[in-house]
Amino acid sequence: MGTSNVVNVRKYCRYMKMQRIIIVVVLVLFLVPWITHYYLSTVERSSIRITHSAHSHADLPEDLSPLKGSDLQTRIEELLRIKGSVSSELREMEHKRQHLLSEIQLYTRNIEQLKIELLHQQTELTKLKISVEQAQVAQREALEQNTPELALPKRFVPNHLLPVLPAISRQLTRNCRMFSCFDHSRCSITSGFPVYLYDPDKYPVMHYGWDIDGFLKTTIKQALGYNAHFTNNPREACVYLVLVGEALKDNGDVSDHAGKFVDVSPLDPNALKRLPYWGGDGRNHILLNLARRDLSTNLGDAFSSLDTGRSILVQSSFTYQLFRPGFDMIVSPVLGPPGGDVWQECPSMVPARRKYLLTFQGEMKKPKDLNPSTIENSYDPKDDDEHIELDKFIVDHLRSLVIGSTNDKFSFEFECVPASDDTMNIGELDWSLCGTDSSRKAVLKESTFTLIFAPKSSELLTTSLLQARIYEALRAGAIPVILGGDQIQLAYNEVIQWKRVCIFLPRARVTELHFLLRTIPDNDIILMRRQGRMIWERYLASVQSTLDTVIAVLRERLNIPPLPVETVPAISVFNDTFQPILALIHLDTEPEESLGPLEPPYNSPAFKRNFSLFLTQSHQIWNDYGDPFHLYPTLPTDPLLPSDAKFIGSSRGFRPIGRGQGGSGKEFSEALGGNSPREQFTILLLTYEREQVLLDSIARLRGLPYLNAVVVVWNSPKLPASDLKWPDIGVPVHIIKGPRNSLNNRFLPLDNLNTEAILSVDDDAHLRHDEILFGFRVWREHRDRIVGFPGRYHAWDLNTQNSWLYNSNYSCELSMVLTGAAFLHRHYLHLYWKWLPQAIRDKVDEYMNCEDIAMNFLVSHITRQPPVKVTSRWTFRCPGCPQSLSEDDTHFEERHKCINFFAQVFGYMPLLNTQYRADSVLFKTRISHDKQKCFKFI
Amino acid sequence: MGTSNVVNVRKYCRYMKMQRIIIVVVLVLFLVPWITHYYLSTVERSSIRITHSAHSHADLPEDLSPLKGSDLQTRIEELLRIKGSVSSELREMEHKRQHLLSEIQLYTRNIEQLKIELLHQQTELTKLKISVEQAQVAQREALEQNTPELALPKRFVPNHLLPVLPAISRQLTRNCRMFSCFDHSRCSITSGFPVYLYDPDKYPVMHYGWDIDGFLKTTIKQALGYNAHFTNNPREACVYLVLVGEALKDNGDVSDHAGKFVDVSPLDPNALKRLPYWGGDGRNHILLNLARRDLSTNLGDAFSSLDTGRSILVQSSFTYQLFRPGFDMIVSPVLGPPGGDVWQECPSMVPARRKYLLTFQGEMKKPKDLNPSTIENSYDPKDDDEHIELDKFIVDHLRSLVIGSTNDKFSFEFECVPASDDTMNIGELDWSLCGTDSSRKAVLKESTFTLIFAPKSSELLTTSLLQARIYEALRAGAIPVILGGDQIQLAYNEVIQWKRVCIFLPRARVTELHFLLRTIPDNDIILMRRQGRMIWERYLASVQSTLDTVIAVLRERLNIPPLPVETVPAISVFNDTFQPILALIHLDTEPEESLGPLEPPYNSPAFKRNFSLFLTQSHQIWNDYGDPFHLYPTLPTDPLLPSDAKFIGSSRGFRPIGRGQGGSGKEFSEALGGNSPREQFTILLLTYEREQVLLDSIARLRGLPYLNAVVVVWNSPKLPASDLKWPDIGVPVHIIKGPRNSLNNRFLPLDNLNTEAILSVDDDAHLRHDEILFGFRVWREHRDRIVGFPGRYHAWDLNTQNSWLYNSNYSCELSMVLTGAAFLHRHYLHLYWKWLPQAIRDKVDEYMNCEDIAMNFLVSHITRQPPVKVTSRWTFRCPGCPQSLSEDDTHFEERHKCINFFAQVFGYMPLLNTQYRADSVLFKTRISHDKQKCFKFI
Repeated sequence: MGTSNVVNVRKYCRYMKMQRIIIVVVLVLFLVPWITHYYLSTVERSSIRITHSAHSHADLPEDLSPLKGSDLQTRIEELLRIKGSVSSELREMEHKRQHLLSEIQLYTRNIEQLKIELLHQQTELTKLKISVEQAQVAQREALEQNTPELALPKRFVPNHLLPVLPAISRQLTRNCRMFSCFDHSRCSITSGFPVYLYDPDKYPVMHYGWDIDGFLKTTIKQALGYNAHFTNNPREACVYLVLVGEALKDNGDVSDHAGKFVDVSPLDPNALKRLPYWGGDGRNHILLNLARRDLSTNLGDAFSSLDTGRSILVQSSFTYQLFRPGFDMIVSPVLGPPGGDVWQECPSMVPARRKYLLTFQGEMKKPKDLNPSTIENSYDPKDDDEHIELDKFIVDHLRSLVIGSTNDKFSFEFECVPASDDTMNIGELDWSLCGTDSSRKAVLKESTFTLIFAPKSSELLTTSLLQARIYEALRAGAIPVILGGDQIQLAYNEVIQWKRVCIFLPRARVTELHFLLRTIPDNDIILMRRQGRMIWERYLASVQSTLDTVIAVLRERLNIPPLPVETVPAISVFNDTFQPILALIHLDTEPEESLGPLEPPYNSPAFKRNFSLFLTQSHQIWNDYGDPFHLYPTLPTDPLLPSDAKFIGSSRGFRPIGRGQGGSGKEFSEALGGNSPREQFTILLLTYEREQVLLDSIARLRGLPYLNAVVVVWNSPKLPASDLKWPDIGVPVHIIKGPRNSLNNRFLPLDNLNTEAILSVDDDAHLRHDEILFGFRVWREHRDRIVGFPGRYHAWDLNTQNSWLYNSNYSCELSMVLTGAAFLHRHYLHLYWKWLPQAIRDKVDEYMNCEDIAMNFLVSHITRQPPVKVTSRWTFRCPGCPQSLSEDDTHFEERHKCINFFAQVFGYMPLLNTQYRADSVLFKTRISHDKQKCFKFI
Repeated sequence: MGTSNVVNVRKYCRYMKMQRIIIVVVLVLFLVPWITHYYLSTVERSSIRITHSAHSHADLPEDLSPLKGSDLQTRIEELLRIKGSVSSELREMEHKRQHLLSEIQLYTRNIEQLKIELLHQQTELTKLKISVEQAQVAQREALEQNTPELALPKRFVPNHLLPVLPAISRQLTRNCRMFSCFDHSRCSITSGFPVYLYDPDKYPVMHYGWDIDGFLKTTIKQALGYNAHFTNNPREACVYLVLVGEALKDNGDVSDHAGKFVDVSPLDPNALKRLPYWGGDGRNHILLNLARRDLSTNLGDAFSSLDTGRSILVQSSFTYQLFRPGFDMIVSPVLGPPGGDVWQECPSMVPARRKYLLTFQGEMKKPKDLNPSTIENSYDPKDDDEHIELDKFIVDHLRSLVIGSTNDKFSFEFECVPASDDTMNIGELDWSLCGTDSSRKAVLKESTFTLIFAPKSSELLTTSLLQARIYEALRAGAIPVILGGDQIQLAYNEVIQWKRVCIFLPRARVTELHFLLRTIPDNDIILMRRQGRMIWERYLASVQSTLDTVIAVLRERLNIPPLPVETVPAISVFNDTFQPILALIHLDTEPEESLGPLEPPYNSPAFKRNFSLFLTQSHQIWNDYGDPFHLYPTLPTDPLLPSDAKFIGSSRGFRPIGRGQGGSGKEFSEALGGNSPREQFTILLLTYEREQVLLDSIARLRGLPYLNAVVVVWNSPKLPASDLKWPDIGVPVHIIKGPRNSLNNRFLPLDNLNTEAILSVDDDAHLRHDEILFGFRVWREHRDRIVGFPGRYHAWDLNTQNSWLYNSNYSCELSMVLTGAAFLHRHYLHLYWKWLPQAIRDKVDEYMNCEDIAMNFLVSHITRQPPVKVTSRWTFRCPGCPQSLSEDDTHFEERHKCINFFAQVFGYMPLLNTQYRADSVLFKTRISHDKQKCFKFI
């Protein structure tokens, strides 16, 4: 009995799933010893009994002894007979037992098979039921939705030129505001904001002898060509750009008007009025007056004496009186390259504290050539006297800091050696720049903070010199401290939160300056520096960014959303007529577990927030994400609905667990739940000449719930064999031609990716369905992060003490999740191509490696969060698949190099550590028998 | 042999911890059946052999048969002898065997004990080693830190009155800006911003026959008393408040100046100049002109014809010309109660879409009594004509919407029925309010959006009527859509991001209005409504909030940080002289695992960002956290340093895993790693008359790494027995008197909580050390969330379909982690008392229940994130402890009620769901033998 018990237990165990084993095992642990013990003691006892009986047999002679020989003989014969019958009986019984045993085994086997079949059928039935239910819910929703979906309307643009209106008085234009001077009727919110540029060569607006800087003319035209808002058609344009500066004398000389207010503007107002679309009053015209070579003139204010009608002035110098808030726009001077990567110009962001706590380089010129007539009447010289006195006090105070008794280092240069270039100062109105761009950069790179004085005259709201100082400080990672910060305004300040980048202090607080700067902790220093670099890179660094920013600010002012981001057209490797062979390949490797309904493809809603996104989140888009230039179908950070809205009024699309009651495994497997509405995911994989591996990988996806489609990027120039049998997995499988063999193609923002969730996998990845679905559910809670399986980390190289190592060992802290098996938001595919510096994609191509590291850098940089690792799974390759790229030593060496190169490009190490992983809620939890776990095995 | 094996296994198991059992059990599972089987078959075989031998004995006669009788007799005797000796030998052997067996058992036991001892010693050694190492690192850091810690300096305030300066010209004061009209010298950044109020009864500033609204006079004085910046000492004050409105005729009548600009201001400028601290020019004076009963007058503009010197005007109506940006301040009218809870006035935020898409109620009065002399010269009636024409077009367009063919409902009322009260309109300049507060509220509660027109005259930058409309709309959760939004300004707009709350549209876009509103999805509607309610509750709702906000805006302008938040003094239950008895109680229940170094208490750095926080994050503090009124020691959202800064320049305090190399279990247990510097946590527990349970709980904490202190709040009025033996656990244990028996005391922000991390536990909680430390590590990654063990969730009641149920079942989705065993940031203790409406704490007291639910609501409301559940642990009570409060049915019923009541107070259900839990990275992962897991059992 004991034996068969043990054997049964073992047989039973073989058929039991791992999770149940624990319980069974505990039972067994208590039962087996008992039973065994019981059995053994029984056996022992019986064997002792047997021994005793044997002894009794042996004792026979004792009983026999008194018997006679013949009796004994008879008795013995009798006994022999009995013995014979008994032993044959025994043999027979043994035979019977064996027979029964084998029969029992047979039955048990059959029963087990039936059980499996039953389980299989039940799972199928459950799956079907859930699917039917989900279909019913979807149908009900479709019926209830009595209003049609609002989609992005057809682009609506005018098709006529501006009618000519009579010119209006300067009194009125002096008070221009958007509602009084701008014609919204040309700029429907669905117009896409078309922008027209007057070709500066075709429509000169300068007086004779003046022309616009050649570099600017060329690059602006070029840069606008790259801007999606650009239109060649003046009839549909919303705004008209007129490039009016930087104006230079025809000989390119800038020196003759330096150091003074310009009396005669180079701009010819009559030329403006002759512009073909001026419309009489210049409404919707933007006068773009960019400073570049000459930062000294107050050219813009010279304009103010001219009649510019209703046009908007865009420049970097304004007086307080003449700047029309919310109408004119302050820009940074264009000191950078036409476009392209700019990271090379920036030093590293660490260490937080540099050699100098605070530096300044500048010179205040003696009064010279000052023409007070151009300054407004309200300008009070006495007011400035006070300023000058204060400035003297400030300079003295700062000088005393240098010789003070603290450890902090300062570097102040209040007179330029050698003397400053005349294009770099505007006399006694503002501090001139000393030295050259590179000599200034050398000091700024060593400065934690750098001082910037507001112009001496409080009438100056902004000057090109001031803006140039900001530009240079941010580029070098020196945090600008603006003394007199309450008197000036910085570029694009209607959208950029400059407080996060610069420290604004009234002049009176100079005595508290040192104390204040010392109290700022390292994390805030790096936060401000990082923010400053973002603002610089995005909005100031190049001609392209300046132009894009000016257009984006105007667009934003007009409540018009940006144009949708471009996607890459998905071109099938098969030509139109070719029909790939589909085959039902049944791989029965998947666990029998109902994981969710099988539904028809359901695409993630897109472009739902076109008009509300910029209403509610524009401050974040400008200052956190740094990308107001494109409209994305969805953002990983789109707001959640509160959980009561799911039941009251906004139930559409939601699939609460147990219809809101919650529950454990059974209810969980039937619905997605969570805080976001229903959705599906797309599997995106890159393949290169491993057809069978790929086909097997695809085949394994059959029956995977919530799968929308599989998109394969075919990296090899060799097209797939036409006789390949593609597995029919119930959802579309798109095989897309990669533009060229590049690992960057792994993240192509293809136009056939219809879900927010992208499961990026290697072609040889082998993930179980339950793992995939758990990863999907976790991703739904962290839509802005990489959520996946293989964890890696960046380790500090203790030998060099100045570089990072890539590490793939098992560890308790990780900082990357490889995109060979990870979920990520479609948004990041766009950013990988639009946002990452080209140098990184080039490095990926150079090494044919590291694209996954680059993606981890990108996402961590944006979110300042580590990735999320799910389940105990670390590897994902299918067992026995042909070796992939990633196995050899060179590969590893390259990854060390990548990680250091990328950190250099980003200016810091964006990766962050995490010390936990996500498991399903009831993993390894003892629960009552009437409940199911969330997943059987994970 | 088999028996002893089984017995051994069982004995062995008894010594093993549950976690090891699994592995052993698996071994046992495979071994036991085999051994048993082997044994049994041996036994079977031997018993069969015995049977056979018995048969052989029985067969004896066969052999014996040829023998003779005497021979037989001899032989039998011989056999009997043999038998006797054999059986005695057998008995002897059995005896020996038994003896040996017991000896073996004894030895095994000893070995086991030795093993445990060895392990214990090894762990102790490792712990010691780590502790020594950590101490060395800390020492090195202390040495390297050659500069002293900067702490909050002594408060520095002036001690003199403002010197009297000559009055300045109105020309200059018209252009007042902070740097030109404000005296910073009275307001050191360390001054704490003292504010002085002229008692309006003592210093009347009104003309004869006028007085200030009595309600305002009283409540302002009262409200300022509750503001920490209030000072009675004019010599130290930074600013001086003068209450100048709302001014009423002495008889309280408001009607006689309604509907017109007031010609004669009620304010007496000479009385101003007679104010004792006016200083000749009124610098640092704030003229507080609040509208309350009469929203119709442009009183503020009447002021503008007076000489108010350098004082700052604070009111809700301004003309464009007279508002000095960055100097004067726009406030909302004070329409609410003096202070206290205001949530009762707000309807629920769900459903997102209400009955009406858009509503308007208002009337534009015919020209009457208009006195144009008070309007500035630049005011151009032609300009207004255009506006009026546009307004007519707008009204016609809106009317056409109502009869349009969409399903959207509108409610527009362009003429008041009954006619509007005269205090509610200002003639043809702005739209008057219709009906009563409650009749308007009734409509607004049904409105998804509500229309607000900018005043007809573009000269009006803001009017009290406009601000009152905003106030009422936000209170009722109707999103304001401001037509002409580009022409007006809203209250406190230098700090409040109104774009997140209102939709600003130029009048010209009225044709696109319906389209635009329809495209706004539900999540954005609720986002805006929620944001609007936050702004309303925090900054507009009551007299207290208005006054606090005005002061905070001024403080912010001057770069002065707010005053530190108040803590609750921790008063020991013991009097000063009493020394509690300490005892070394050794409970050996903890797993032998080295979990980290034992270090002396190390407090979390505090108030490091005093000056940088508001420089870099003020926009978040005002608009996301909604609490610019207090300075907190740290915030859960303080920025992280990038991981390279840990090694370059900012290494202080960081304890990277493996000194930066990373690693698995061994290295992990030696250092905290992560993205934040070293820190410790405080255990905070509330106890009520269960002394032994408490003492046991405390005793179990001995040797817990990273524990800073244990703080026990003694809720019982009965003090602890003086002869209690308090366990000596190596860290301070503070027993603090609870102010009164209240569960709210669980979250008292005591002044002796010296760490950011608080582990809140019930007095009977039983958590293992490894669980606590893993929870601590996970919390360090989610410092703004509740991180803990017992998961619960809110379920929708499918029966009522309009309420929530509290659910504590095992589930795959959870939304709360009970604070009976959870980490949370000290910050939330402050918020629980300062930020939660009183009604919630009252409910907790009423039921003696639900404080943990309230905390979950609070944190989810602020973060919009679910809590984090760690490890498979669900319960935390010590086994066998006396029953606590939470076990009976009433308790559960109350929790249902709480959850619904809290949702009502918050206006929505802030809880969010999560579908995963956090485990340590290598939990249940097979790793190579030379590596350790992160934790042995979790």
